[in-house]
Amino acid sequence: MTNAALPTLPAAVEILDTTLRDGLQIEKTIVPTGSKIRLGRALAAAGLKHLEVGAFVNPKKVPQMADTAEVLAGLQPLEAEGVELYTLVFNRKGAQRAADAGARNVKLVISASEGHSKANSDSSIAQASERLLEAVDELRSHGIRYDIATAVSFYCPFDGVTDVDSLIEILRTFTTAGARGIGLADTVGNSNPGLVSRTTAAVLAEFPEHPVNLHLHDTYNFGMANVFAALILGITSFDAAMGGLGGCPFAPGAAGNIGTDDLVHLLHKEGIETGVDVEQLAAVRDPLSEAVGHGLTSSLSSIPAVPSAVVRGAA
Amino acid sequence: MTNAALPTLPAAVEILDTTLRDGLQIEKTIVPTGSKIRLGRALAAAGLKHLEVGAFVNPKKVPQMADTAEVLAGLQPLEAEGVELYTLVFNRKGAQRAADAGARNVKLVISASEGHSKANSDSSIAQASERLLEAVDELRSHGIRYDIATAVSFYCPFDGVTDVDSLIEILRTFTTAGARGIGLADTVGNSNPGLVSRTTAAVLAEFPEHPVNLHLHDTYNFGMANVFAALILGITSFDAAMGGLGGCPFAPGAAGNIGTDDLVHLLHKEGIETGVDVEQLAAVRDPLSEAVGHGLTSSLSSIPAVPSAVVRGAA
Repeated sequence: MTNAALPTLPAAVEILDTTLRDGLQIEKTIVPTGSKIRLGRALAAAGLKHLEVGAFVNPKKVPQMADTAEVLAGLQPLEAEGVELYTLVFNRKGAQRAADAGARNVKLVISASEGHSKANSDSSIAQASERLLEAVDELRSHGIRYDIATAVSFYCPFDGVTDVDSLIEILRTFTTAGARGIGLADTVGNSNPGLVSRTTAAVLAEFPEHPVNLHLHDTYNFGMANVFAALILGITSFDAAMGGLGGCPFAPGAAGNIGTDDLVHLLHKEGIETGVDVEQLAAVRDPLSEAVGHGLTSSLSSIPAVPSAVVRGAA
Repeated sequence: MTNAALPTLPAAVEILDTTLRDGLQIEKTIVPTGSKIRLGRALAAAGLKHLEVGAFVNPKKVPQMADTAEVLAGLQPLEAEGVELYTLVFNRKGAQRAADAGARNVKLVISASEGHSKANSDSSIAQASERLLEAVDELRSHGIRYDIATAVSFYCPFDGVTDVDSLIEILRTFTTAGARGIGLADTVGNSNPGLVSRTTAAVLAEFPEHPVNLHLHDTYNFGMANVFAALILGITSFDAAMGGLGGCPFAPGAAGNIGTDDLVHLLHKEGIETGVDVEQLAAVRDPLSEAVGHGLTSSLSSIPAVPSAVVRGAA
């Protein structure tokens, strides 16, 4: 056993912070628009250059996301500073709303399993796909960039391990239709590193020209192990929500996203650059916790990181 | 990127359950001897073949471990069923007590950093090493097998990253003195997968004939990532404590061990055999929680695993 066997990790990683979208979408408290905008600005001030700020979905079904256009408007000045703002879209109407709101980056979301598609959107994958392709027409006519993201990409609580060939077929439909990036979501957080590795490697092999982002949850304490497995494969883009907020309302047993704070902690310990200022990021924790009205679940929410003076090594 | 890049993991892993030792040593409640013995039997009944059941340390300083000889006596009938019982020893007196108690397997423990050695035992590494070598004399004269385990093997909260050459020197002293296995502990749980990989790979290269066990804590949600990094290197022995109990009383910021339940969950998801019956293991959670008087912290303590029917995949 020599050091040659040690995995090589990327030098830098981009974090797409989804606090304002996945972090808030299942909260009982509907966080006011002004608070969301302040939180978004604070996340950007901490160095996060990619923020997912809402979803253009039915406001009656997901009232937490009803103000997505207003949140986007409030944060758009950050685009001049190089911050990219993302919103989710599931159909033509959502695409129209995104266009009206001046969105530049959209994530098209579809389930990779029939069971989750049915539970999440009461549709088959084919029906959901058809609606998304209508959204694509709309986005294209406005010159809006779009990524394709698949829920339950690795494992589905209803259908078990997600079939990789079906997943690739879904992704192919949308890369052919002009999607730029690919997002693979472990929506319920019940994937393990080996499974994440196998599926992600297969997707990377099929789509060498498309950046692949991973969206991981921490239901069973496997979140950081899944990140590590993905880093070994060269993945350089991860979703995360501050403090580990979040979860999927239409999937049983789902827990929070991997924490943006915990992810940054891991990446920095691995010597991987994120551009994030740890102290400014930590300062977002209290106002966020106050906004949702309860404590956060990331490990750094309860245990402070070892001070940097110690990290560097004492004499 | 092809599947050839995917890491290969071991087919089977041995878990050394340290619930009765590391799990209980910092609990405020002193769990009665009878309860410890019942818990140990339940863990063995769940298929755990390696149990760390106590420490022969100063009962005034660590009253939770004062009954180690009695606990060992109560569990020794399990040895006929192939269960190996471990206890910790730090000096000649501890070795004598272990011998008197009929111990067959002992872990000699020493800090790998001067800062932790001072805090943990008010001694330099050289002084602690001298005491351990006296213990070795005693153990040898009784034909007791012993492993050498180093605390803060990767990272020390006082001294920072542990020097690998110093670590290897310490380990060499005891393998030369007849230690069979090597245990590397992330005592405070602030190691990251890359660090665990580098140090473990160096130790494996130096000691190809000695089985290497890893003892990991889950302070920053990195526990399972560290397990995965170690599995990639071929490590097949891990310590864990049921429900994620435990911590080090002499190290700031230490949180619980990785949960035996969470570890088994990860390993089984990876298709790695442990010999553990998941349902019988889960049945230990309630009596353990009752014995310590509070809830447990492993993820499975609060979120049930996906039922196996679903894990196998629906139609």
